[in-house]
Amino acid sequence: MLKKLADLIIGKPLPNEQSSHERYNIPFGLAIMASDAVSSVAYAAEEILIVLIPIIGLASYYWLGWISFMIIALLSILTISYIQVIHAYPQGGGAYIVAKENIGLKSGLVAGSALLIDYLLTVAVSASSGIAAIISAFPHLSEYKVILAITIVIVLTILNLRGISESAKIFSIPAYLFIISMIFMIIYGFIKFYLYGAPTAMINEQIKATGDLSVFLILRAFSSGCSALTGLEAVSNSVPNFREPAQKNAKTVMIFLSSLIIFIFGGMSILSRFYHTIPVGYPTVIAQMAYAIFGQSFMFYVIQFATALILIMACNTAFTGFPMLMHTVGKDGFVPKQFTIKGKRLSFSTGIVALGIVACILIAVFDANNHDLMPLYSVGVFLSFTLAQAGMVKHWVNSKENGWIKRASINGFGAIITAGTTLIIAYEKFAHGAWMVIVIIPILVFSMIAIKKHYTNVAAQLKIENNELKNVNLDKNFSHIIIVPIASLNKATIATLEYARSLSKDIIALNVSTDIDAINELKKKWSELNTDILLVSKYSTYRTVIDPLLDYINQIANSASKNEKVTVMIPEFITHNSLGEILHNHTGFIIRESLLQNNNIIVSTYPYHVQDNTDIEI
Amino acid sequence: MLKKLADLIIGKPLPNEQSSHERYNIPFGLAIMASDAVSSVAYAAEEILIVLIPIIGLASYYWLGWISFMIIALLSILTISYIQVIHAYPQGGGAYIVAKENIGLKSGLVAGSALLIDYLLTVAVSASSGIAAIISAFPHLSEYKVILAITIVIVLTILNLRGISESAKIFSIPAYLFIISMIFMIIYGFIKFYLYGAPTAMINEQIKATGDLSVFLILRAFSSGCSALTGLEAVSNSVPNFREPAQKNAKTVMIFLSSLIIFIFGGMSILSRFYHTIPVGYPTVIAQMAYAIFGQSFMFYVIQFATALILIMACNTAFTGFPMLMHTVGKDGFVPKQFTIKGKRLSFSTGIVALGIVACILIAVFDANNHDLMPLYSVGVFLSFTLAQAGMVKHWVNSKENGWIKRASINGFGAIITAGTTLIIAYEKFAHGAWMVIVIIPILVFSMIAIKKHYTNVAAQLKIENNELKNVNLDKNFSHIIIVPIASLNKATIATLEYARSLSKDIIALNVSTDIDAINELKKKWSELNTDILLVSKYSTYRTVIDPLLDYINQIANSASKNEKVTVMIPEFITHNSLGEILHNHTGFIIRESLLQNNNIIVSTYPYHVQDNTDIEI
Repeated sequence: MLKKLADLIIGKPLPNEQSSHERYNIPFGLAIMASDAVSSVAYAAEEILIVLIPIIGLASYYWLGWISFMIIALLSILTISYIQVIHAYPQGGGAYIVAKENIGLKSGLVAGSALLIDYLLTVAVSASSGIAAIISAFPHLSEYKVILAITIVIVLTILNLRGISESAKIFSIPAYLFIISMIFMIIYGFIKFYLYGAPTAMINEQIKATGDLSVFLILRAFSSGCSALTGLEAVSNSVPNFREPAQKNAKTVMIFLSSLIIFIFGGMSILSRFYHTIPVGYPTVIAQMAYAIFGQSFMFYVIQFATALILIMACNTAFTGFPMLMHTVGKDGFVPKQFTIKGKRLSFSTGIVALGIVACILIAVFDANNHDLMPLYSVGVFLSFTLAQAGMVKHWVNSKENGWIKRASINGFGAIITAGTTLIIAYEKFAHGAWMVIVIIPILVFSMIAIKKHYTNVAAQLKIENNELKNVNLDKNFSHIIIVPIASLNKATIATLEYARSLSKDIIALNVSTDIDAINELKKKWSELNTDILLVSKYSTYRTVIDPLLDYINQIANSASKNEKVTVMIPEFITHNSLGEILHNHTGFIIRESLLQNNNIIVSTYPYHVQDNTDIEI
Repeated sequence: MLKKLADLIIGKPLPNEQSSHERYNIPFGLAIMASDAVSSVAYAAEEILIVLIPIIGLASYYWLGWISFMIIALLSILTISYIQVIHAYPQGGGAYIVAKENIGLKSGLVAGSALLIDYLLTVAVSASSGIAAIISAFPHLSEYKVILAITIVIVLTILNLRGISESAKIFSIPAYLFIISMIFMIIYGFIKFYLYGAPTAMINEQIKATGDLSVFLILRAFSSGCSALTGLEAVSNSVPNFREPAQKNAKTVMIFLSSLIIFIFGGMSILSRFYHTIPVGYPTVIAQMAYAIFGQSFMFYVIQFATALILIMACNTAFTGFPMLMHTVGKDGFVPKQFTIKGKRLSFSTGIVALGIVACILIAVFDANNHDLMPLYSVGVFLSFTLAQAGMVKHWVNSKENGWIKRASINGFGAIITAGTTLIIAYEKFAHGAWMVIVIIPILVFSMIAIKKHYTNVAAQLKIENNELKNVNLDKNFSHIIIVPIASLNKATIATLEYARSLSKDIIALNVSTDIDAINELKKKWSELNTDILLVSKYSTYRTVIDPLLDYINQIANSASKNEKVTVMIPEFITHNSLGEILHNHTGFIIRESLLQNNNIIVSTYPYHVQDNTDIEI
């Protein structure tokens, strides 16, 4: 039944042959990449103003310009650096691969962990921001924000389990809707400002300066604004997904993407200055600007709708990226093998489900408040930027290919700038949540190494060399002792004893009870049976049936010779409803797990099927 | 290791023989019963004022008197009614037993469910109120209220798992501390008022009338104040725990208890009127009164401390009552059998743990706010009062013993009054949370009936009559087909094949893989083995290994004759660390569960122990 439900939700399984790759042309590739990279401008200006306005009031709009300029400069450096990654890694060079191959395993794992965390945060942040856009248009929905954001994540999880990536061309529509409506708003906003000046923004009487401008404040605002650059590395990860000439197309998309971010982010920053938008949660800064420019008109709703859509799409890119990265890291043995197996619908279902669950928890814990999630976000992104750039420097130095000095210098400059930015973000955001990321990354790296060591150890112990195979003799002369734990004589225990008896003559029926009357009754019944099977009865003074049972079985197992195999055969009632599963077989489960853990005992389960009967009178 | 930890926290197991009963004399019995019944006056006056003050302002104090009088009248009726229950049920007559025996099974289950819910709420409400008393004395603790309340519940859970009931005499100290300090405060408060008049209470400028007096308002306040009467039925449940003459002693305690409640609750209500206490959350009404009467003196802290202690003790009565009731209902088969088994320390540990967990969830969900929990509380108490009284009427009518008409009339009057109160509470509190209780009770009753039917059905299907026993022949001539699912040839699979082969010559090694290369490699290795065991290899086009494996095994099982037993033997790596448990054997687990659920297949697990090795290089 569960399987039917799964089929209904996820769809019928797809055969291996249907695995195909629809490759991106430039406009489609741009749309796919834009959803993550461009959508982050939807909250970046807001994050800068949140830092500045409470301290320096109206002066914030002046500094917003400078900070945006710094971020755009950083973006330009990163764009050139990443074009070089595309050049060097036509097979797709995520920070994990670039750092691992060039710097070393641990750097690769640090970069991989940082990226994995960022994918998780992308889902939580983008879903929360998307809902913020919707709430800005429909304020009465604000009390449902957590449930709405979680609903988006659940729907995306299901869609990705079904495997939407193949029909993803439809996704370019909202990306272009967002891009075009933002460009239109910026141009219209400029024209309107020059013709009529700034109208009164929705709220601006709150602007009071309460503190002083300082370098720290500027750095803090800068580190907040760096969230605009998240998602930029996506192009270099996806080179093999582009149509041929893949590298050239990827580079073109990278340049278009950066230009779009510069235009939209820069334009937004200047317009924020004109229209004095203020971060208040809801409505968002974009919504305030749209309202100031278009009023409560059709275009206002288009902007909100397009913003929500592109942010939901940004969530979706993480649903592609996270399982892919888990697959890559998993093939190297650093995460559980389950993440490397494609599910029924040809998607990496374990990764998709894991991403969905963790993102929902993040949304619930942070109350769908993207401003609280932000400080966790950028530090990982910039850490992986830095490691990728540093890895590229070593790559060029080692390759000594034409122009390697120039190329190494570019990536080196990028590495220094992003390293500096990483430190600024880590320092400025430490107390606001970045410490969590800084704590979690080493834990993840440590866990990944432990997993790899575990897999290596198990494989080494299990391995049989090919030349040993012909000496293996499967026909051993084992004798068998079979122990059947029974609580009473009933049809299930009788059937189990029959089965055990047909495998070996050496059977022990073992009964442990806390009830002396029950023991006596069993002994009396047993005496009426026509059998020579030994019944061992034990009275437990401590009300635990399991401990004396395990003690007795382990004692027999310890005194068994090398050629004697001890098997414990547990009768289990199988009921065909969930109530039965809750009510029965807990003891059997505990016995089974304890015996397997502690000794060389084979544990067998003999099923006895009990039919449902709804006509029972009580 | 887990076991050692459990021993440390819960204590070493106690043998059956240590089970003894320390019986209550009158002063000790009064202390035990008072903790639940008397402690509820700590919040009852507050609950009445919360309803009245926002609507009718200062007039509230006048009506508080009348409502308290109505509640005291109700208390008197209940006291007389319950003395009759004690008379009729010397073996202890909880609402479950009285309703079940006299009215019918479903009424008993309704009463039992209502009582179970109330025990859960007693823990949550009393822990929250106890913390409220502490916060009133130390206001800066208020931000930790949820964690403090949950800590109390966890500590009580552990203490009860250790089995504190036997040394419970020490509990009479806080009960008498509370009783004596409350009596002292009331007398001192009266004297002070008559000598000096009322001092200004901590806060009273907030009293503004915003609405009109109405019958509904009075009823709502009355239904809130009825929380003062919770815990009253405890004496009648515990008759066998009293020293002989048990019934006479229990009746004496019942009368003392009612007198105490009347004095303390009545006195508190009148003093609230004099000193104009206002429910504001923290400080509580009792704290305000203590402050008004004693100032910030030593006695103020004594009152807060005694209130907190008695409320924690009230929690503890639920930790005795809930597992006992689960045990009683469980012996009748309406809840899982686990609840009827005494744990290592002779307490009903399953019930204790279940109570602790649900109470912690309630506290977390309701943010340790006892005012929000209150509406859920009284409706169940009064429902069980009503059913117990109605059951008693039938009891007297059927018994026809001396004076049955008088006795039936008394309980009948009690039943009518409590039924009316139940309806008032359900109506007035419906929207505030009572609906939850009204929804949950039928669900619980339905579940209990389903559990009983399930147990009855299973027992009927498993039963072997004594006269059939001598005809049972355990020596059947089964032949065995053993299927060993293998993913590759390694030491674990070789060991499993050896074991299987020693049980039967008819062995199939079954390999399902999504990787055609892996299949070919296994075939090649297999051919080098010196064996005639059949290797069946299947390529899975749908990337699921489990489904084709199950299909093949089920096919063999379906074509097996009646005398052929199909056994599936699963090799399992046992690693001695938790990482290994996470990483391995999920497939084995799913195969095992699916096969057991769907067919008459015996499933066996062959353990292969992999040693930990920390020297692995990667």
